[in-house]
Amino acid sequence: MITRSIRVNRTINRSITTSSVNSIRLDNSTINSKVINAQYAVRGEIPVKADIYGQQIRDGNGDKLPFKAIMPCNIGNPQQQGLNQKPLTFWRQVAALTECPELIDNTQLFPKDVRDRARELLNEIGSVGAYSHSKGVPFIREQVAKFLEARDGYPSDPENIFLTAGASGGVSLLFHLLLSGDPDGVMIPIPQYPLYSASLALAGSRTIQYHLDENRGWELNMNLLEKSFNDAQSQGTEVKALVIINPGNPTGAILSEENMRDIARFAQKHELVLLADEVYQSNIYDKNKPFVSFKKVIKDLKLDDLQLASFHSISKGFSGECGRRGGFVEYVNFSEDFLTEATKLASISLCPPLQGQIAVDLMIRPPKEGEESYEQYRKEKDEVLASYASRSKLLAERFNQMEGVSCNNSEGAMYAFPQIRLPQKAIDAAKKQGKSPDSFYCLELLDNTGICVVPGSGFGQAPDTLHFRTTCLVPGTEDYINTIEKFHKEFMNKYRD
Amino acid sequence: MITRSIRVNRTINRSITTSSVNSIRLDNSTINSKVINAQYAVRGEIPVKADIYGQQIRDGNGDKLPFKAIMPCNIGNPQQQGLNQKPLTFWRQVAALTECPELIDNTQLFPKDVRDRARELLNEIGSVGAYSHSKGVPFIREQVAKFLEARDGYPSDPENIFLTAGASGGVSLLFHLLLSGDPDGVMIPIPQYPLYSASLALAGSRTIQYHLDENRGWELNMNLLEKSFNDAQSQGTEVKALVIINPGNPTGAILSEENMRDIARFAQKHELVLLADEVYQSNIYDKNKPFVSFKKVIKDLKLDDLQLASFHSISKGFSGECGRRGGFVEYVNFSEDFLTEATKLASISLCPPLQGQIAVDLMIRPPKEGEESYEQYRKEKDEVLASYASRSKLLAERFNQMEGVSCNNSEGAMYAFPQIRLPQKAIDAAKKQGKSPDSFYCLELLDNTGICVVPGSGFGQAPDTLHFRTTCLVPGTEDYINTIEKFHKEFMNKYRD
Repeated sequence: MITRSIRVNRTINRSITTSSVNSIRLDNSTINSKVINAQYAVRGEIPVKADIYGQQIRDGNGDKLPFKAIMPCNIGNPQQQGLNQKPLTFWRQVAALTECPELIDNTQLFPKDVRDRARELLNEIGSVGAYSHSKGVPFIREQVAKFLEARDGYPSDPENIFLTAGASGGVSLLFHLLLSGDPDGVMIPIPQYPLYSASLALAGSRTIQYHLDENRGWELNMNLLEKSFNDAQSQGTEVKALVIINPGNPTGAILSEENMRDIARFAQKHELVLLADEVYQSNIYDKNKPFVSFKKVIKDLKLDDLQLASFHSISKGFSGECGRRGGFVEYVNFSEDFLTEATKLASISLCPPLQGQIAVDLMIRPPKEGEESYEQYRKEKDEVLASYASRSKLLAERFNQMEGVSCNNSEGAMYAFPQIRLPQKAIDAAKKQGKSPDSFYCLELLDNTGICVVPGSGFGQAPDTLHFRTTCLVPGTEDYINTIEKFHKEFMNKYRD
Repeated sequence: MITRSIRVNRTINRSITTSSVNSIRLDNSTINSKVINAQYAVRGEIPVKADIYGQQIRDGNGDKLPFKAIMPCNIGNPQQQGLNQKPLTFWRQVAALTECPELIDNTQLFPKDVRDRARELLNEIGSVGAYSHSKGVPFIREQVAKFLEARDGYPSDPENIFLTAGASGGVSLLFHLLLSGDPDGVMIPIPQYPLYSASLALAGSRTIQYHLDENRGWELNMNLLEKSFNDAQSQGTEVKALVIINPGNPTGAILSEENMRDIARFAQKHELVLLADEVYQSNIYDKNKPFVSFKKVIKDLKLDDLQLASFHSISKGFSGECGRRGGFVEYVNFSEDFLTEATKLASISLCPPLQGQIAVDLMIRPPKEGEESYEQYRKEKDEVLASYASRSKLLAERFNQMEGVSCNNSEGAMYAFPQIRLPQKAIDAAKKQGKSPDSFYCLELLDNTGICVVPGSGFGQAPDTLHFRTTCLVPGTEDYINTIEKFHKEFMNKYRD
């Protein structure tokens, strides 16, 4: 009933809008060209098309589609409809009590540690309906500092920590401070998470690509890094910073500690700010490669001149709480001037969302052994991490069995990034449609199966290679990969040279 | 115990940080100068000093201060500690159920309409832990469109509506699309809410001031508007947009409908995007001046060429839910191109916080008469609005009784913006300290009373006039204004010529 009235309403409105489009000021010729130039493929053409299919199905008009549902594997969004990862009970109970403090003494519904945590947080925050300090609630920043001290074995100052609206919010803030347009530039890995290239486009600054070595498990090769830096300098680029994503997105690779030390020394030598995207630090599948932070590496090396910004997020890990928008950044070896300006910039958007800030506290202070919520929390955490590990492994194995496909094992994060070698006929067909061959492949996959993945060109890839990225978040991974395999066989047969 | 350990920790860390400040890249000479140039006084020097006092008091070191608590009247943040406005029960109950859906059938704790709403929202959203569409949950945008249709009597298309992280998030997004740097400029009222001047500084674009007429109740004078536009054009400014804040912040003035029609015609004539900041649309104290939206005005006038962006927020009104960061913007008469680019830009920061989006739904769909929560909701709403009205009235009355102070009555919003005429000796003393006289006055007020207000210079004021802005959110307004009055007398006596 509701659906129907909305649909009618929508139809009426559409026709009205169409008749009144008289864009004087703002069309593609007048919109800020930096925005026009920015691309964000994980929510780009293919996901937009998938959304349209999804709406068709919800509206009851999906009968003619060759699939019954959209499988949204374009973005690491574990709790979305179709994937439905169960949230951590402890997190949600604390969140509910901070919304409704009058339930805080309800011992029947809420365990003691949940009620204690909510009480402690509310005592510091007051109300989740109030703006907090622009850097985030001081108490939560103090807890983050303790977490970092315990993780790395080095001191951490709450004043150097900013809570943010996801890691994206933190990166955007730093880029604003760091970049004044052209010829400033930032080194980013290829393949990369497109937040970086998009943010650089918005800043009007240069993207300096350094390629990861797919043939060596997406290793970061120091010679390629040096070469990329030198090339940029010789082109007049003011190289400001180096982005490292570890564990890698979309690659899933984990840097060796030796590699990290070389990277840190490189950044110091060239006076680059080191941006460490460490949002997948809890997503590690290879037990022989524990997470090591860049903070620890640069402190071990006593690189007190190297400026490091390390990002973390509540959206990934095993919580997957993307929708509340929470995260933090620690600034290491930055000046008071910088922190003052960063605080002012943060204050213009007032503060990060309070439920995102609370979730940061929950992420870094999980229930302890012996506390009432501990067993359930541990069970929920282990289940999620085990499923990610087994799904990642299965995806890589099965991709490697497909014709013309190869895929490195994911050591971490939540993606697979297979390389696909397509027949010339497919490449020609793509060209005919004005599409890149990987986009063409992914669109065919979507049109035929409802599976939504992102072409490698959205992340960047070596010339003459083609890839796509899928998340490892699908509950029925066996069925999922079977469907891809079936599609792939048919695609290859259709376009075989 | 907790407080003590934190304090020690903080002291240790401070000394470590100080020793390791070796800013290579990022100090005031290298940080993006656009950020350096931006100012945001409502969280500027005086609030920062107030924070330090507040921390002193919390740490038990406030004995020597001449006040026992900070009274935070610098920003419209009704639920913050010290003000403690009670949240709307209906809102918080729905929020709690969306966090913990397993309580949704608990008929003892939650009224039927609360449970129905939570169920309806979760059915559409899935999980509050999932990223939504970057423009916001489609269902909630559909509800916003219906709300706007009912409010204005004109059709509204959900596709033209973006949910945002507060109105600030929406304004920032539009400025990004609209402005390419210099010589682009935007017309803003003086006095204004400093989000606008700060956002223009960040964009590297020009601020074009038009003055409101304090002697006529902060009226918007069309001749001054024309003059300001012509002056800007003659200086080579590419005038892109006109910002109107209605009801006014900090002025509290409400535009007449005739005035609004003139403004709309002016914007159309000069092909300006009209930015209508209408976040105080529920905060109207003068029953003879009901809120009229710019959407209604331009539709009445059939100005189908005029591009309007109208902003609303959950942070103001009678909900005051600042901390969850929610709001929306409706784009009227914009092109498909523009909406596509705006969606892409929104997607780079993924989505607005889900609890902010849910709160938008609660704001525009309050409980209806006959529903279980209606009576309590109405009572809570009426109490808040009545207290704002009586406090605003009292503040203006009492300010007007003070020596050298005059204050227009607030017809709306949640502020008073008195003009203060200070003795020359005070002005000289300010100069000696390198402060503007209004900052000097506000700092003295803070140092002597713990009351934190914002100098008029933070909002802009006519040459040779001085003001400050206080919110009307203090529960004990009588005591509050008594304290200001006592301070003011002493200040005037101290600096009397």
